[in-house]
Amino acid sequence: MLIVKKFGGTSVADKERILNVARRCVEEYKKGNEVVVVLSAMGKQTDVLLTQAREINPNASKREIDMLLTTGEQISVALMAMAIDSLGVPAISLNAFQVAMHTTSVYSNARLKRIDSERIRNELASKKIVIITGFQGINQVDDYTTLGRGGSDTTAVALAAALNADACEIYTDVDGVFTADPRVVPNARKIEEITYDEMLELASLGAGVLHNRSVEMAKKYGVQLVVRSSLNNTEGTIVKEEVSMEKLLVSGVAADRNTARIAVMGLEDQPGVAFKLFNHLAKHNINVDIILQSVGRDGTKDISFTVSEDNVDEAVEILERHREGSLKCHGIDVEKNVAKVSIVGAGMMTNAGVAAKMFEALYDAGVNIKMISTSEIRVTVLIDESYVDQAMKAVHDKFSLA
Amino acid sequence: MLIVKKFGGTSVADKERILNVARRCVEEYKKGNEVVVVLSAMGKQTDVLLTQAREINPNASKREIDMLLTTGEQISVALMAMAIDSLGVPAISLNAFQVAMHTTSVYSNARLKRIDSERIRNELASKKIVIITGFQGINQVDDYTTLGRGGSDTTAVALAAALNADACEIYTDVDGVFTADPRVVPNARKIEEITYDEMLELASLGAGVLHNRSVEMAKKYGVQLVVRSSLNNTEGTIVKEEVSMEKLLVSGVAADRNTARIAVMGLEDQPGVAFKLFNHLAKHNINVDIILQSVGRDGTKDISFTVSEDNVDEAVEILERHREGSLKCHGIDVEKNVAKVSIVGAGMMTNAGVAAKMFEALYDAGVNIKMISTSEIRVTVLIDESYVDQAMKAVHDKFSLA
Repeated sequence: MLIVKKFGGTSVADKERILNVARRCVEEYKKGNEVVVVLSAMGKQTDVLLTQAREINPNASKREIDMLLTTGEQISVALMAMAIDSLGVPAISLNAFQVAMHTTSVYSNARLKRIDSERIRNELASKKIVIITGFQGINQVDDYTTLGRGGSDTTAVALAAALNADACEIYTDVDGVFTADPRVVPNARKIEEITYDEMLELASLGAGVLHNRSVEMAKKYGVQLVVRSSLNNTEGTIVKEEVSMEKLLVSGVAADRNTARIAVMGLEDQPGVAFKLFNHLAKHNINVDIILQSVGRDGTKDISFTVSEDNVDEAVEILERHREGSLKCHGIDVEKNVAKVSIVGAGMMTNAGVAAKMFEALYDAGVNIKMISTSEIRVTVLIDESYVDQAMKAVHDKFSLA
Repeated sequence: MLIVKKFGGTSVADKERILNVARRCVEEYKKGNEVVVVLSAMGKQTDVLLTQAREINPNASKREIDMLLTTGEQISVALMAMAIDSLGVPAISLNAFQVAMHTTSVYSNARLKRIDSERIRNELASKKIVIITGFQGINQVDDYTTLGRGGSDTTAVALAAALNADACEIYTDVDGVFTADPRVVPNARKIEEITYDEMLELASLGAGVLHNRSVEMAKKYGVQLVVRSSLNNTEGTIVKEEVSMEKLLVSGVAADRNTARIAVMGLEDQPGVAFKLFNHLAKHNINVDIILQSVGRDGTKDISFTVSEDNVDEAVEILERHREGSLKCHGIDVEKNVAKVSIVGAGMMTNAGVAAKMFEALYDAGVNIKMISTSEIRVTVLIDESYVDQAMKAVHDKFSLA
């Protein structure tokens, strides 16, 4: 079997943890498997480098930031190769140039285009454990790029696809994917199996275990993922195309506090208004989440939408800038203390009453709903941020997820 | 003019020093020059990484050590690009892959074979200051290599040669090359001009400003070097093929404390004995310095030689191992508390009495000479290490170098 194992920064934060990961990899190798290891930068290394950069130049180019940050994973993989070697198993580290990992040219947020697997296959053939830098790639002009948030997960999945691996294991500091955040809902339960689509909804809704892009890629290439703990040998959660019939209708409850609501009121009721509004934001790479349009007074309309809290100030600034030009409106209103709470479950919407049951739970808990959005496998409500914990507990109990 | 500037680890040890170097480079650029900057790793970064490696695996492979260490210069160049950019001048950092810097395949001690200059020329043409990682290269299998001690100087000279640069400036924390170590001989004087050959002798004898390989390469490709301070604007020392006629016969006095003497006594007086002895050492990459052979008693001969102190234990161990086999001798004697003191000057040996004058100075100072070695431009004596300071002062005074 060829197994790709990905370990995050916490798992390689110091000497002891590096040796711990090395031992796990050697165990797998000694079972007769081929092992490819993907690593992030050690602990807070990326933050340390970013601080150094900011002190020297607060507006440093993304090209040079990527040049700087890619050293982080290179240190991890070199040290890991030494650690595995010290346990008597041959190992070799490879960076994005050596693999090579071809990406698009956008610095800080590149997408993987193609992975050359020849060198990896050769090193595996010579019985080595191969350790590869996550998060990084090279673009057409031979510059380093990085893959953005959750980039190392994406590297691992892409490698699993390119190498046609038998398994792709994402190691983290929790035991797997849970029915809700265990810090908020103490009786949350580990999910044994979950579909790609459910995982996608959970990731985008702030469950935070796997990044969306890695799950999307796993779905596209049919890579079966396992999310498990690097601290113990618990089975973890399997993410795949279809899961067993007996599973619960609702897989989990997720909350996302990193959200803000913008309401644009009194827009002209004409074709193209929504297009203009969201096109301005798209041009600045601002992702918009839930969108709600309602009819306003005097032949106008109101459009509300949510963006991540990091983008809200920029979004408002952009809209204000066009208020006198292409975007005529009466007012722009912002609410930052809001959060999204969602339930996710494959086939949920073909079952009547799921949404209603969620709303009932929230009503019983005295939580007011500000916006609602639904998809095939998800129901999301926007609520006041201070009610998130009690909302999650209420919904979790209602669907008997514990 | 195209100018290559090399700054060592001390010159880029922190934010302030990085910005200081950035300002110097920008100054040069604003005079209308093309500027290529070569950097070492920041301050003690290389040592920090080596310690991390040793803690994980005391016998880490050199391949992985190089993979680890090359991150050091990459951090320096990225931060420098940001610093220069913050001063309003476009800059770009490049590592050994991006240049590319082709080397031999020996890890930890590779030699530069070829530098592709296309990318550098393109970046210069687009009016950027180009910042390049010193010390590192890539070998035939696309692995990182490092150039060994003084590697960044070699990178700078090689780049100056490849780019046909008008000047190659090596920045250090002293004002240039001195007639003797100013810490030992307080009235030592900065040398304005010195030949490659003199510099080579001084470097190999422990003057320590420039590494031999960089001077050898500068001589080979006719690259004029300037050694100057990164802390002030003093003129520095020019290293070139020929210097003005008026210069002093003896350029400087150097000492090398990192030396030990090994005496192999009672060797058979037969052809091939010296070859066998030094071949054993060469196989283990141990460089031998002064060699002295004398006739021993009973038809045997004695061979004495010096090695660096780092190698002496290994050298003795190798010789002991072959003592019963190919290397029959009566005894092996080691003396570690010795040092070399040398005078260097082009054309010295065509002037009668230079060596004698040195020996006179040492006699007057009461310093006993253990071995003597001479070349066209150098006289070296081996003395007791405790006499080094007074020997240097005496010789420096004798030749009126102050």
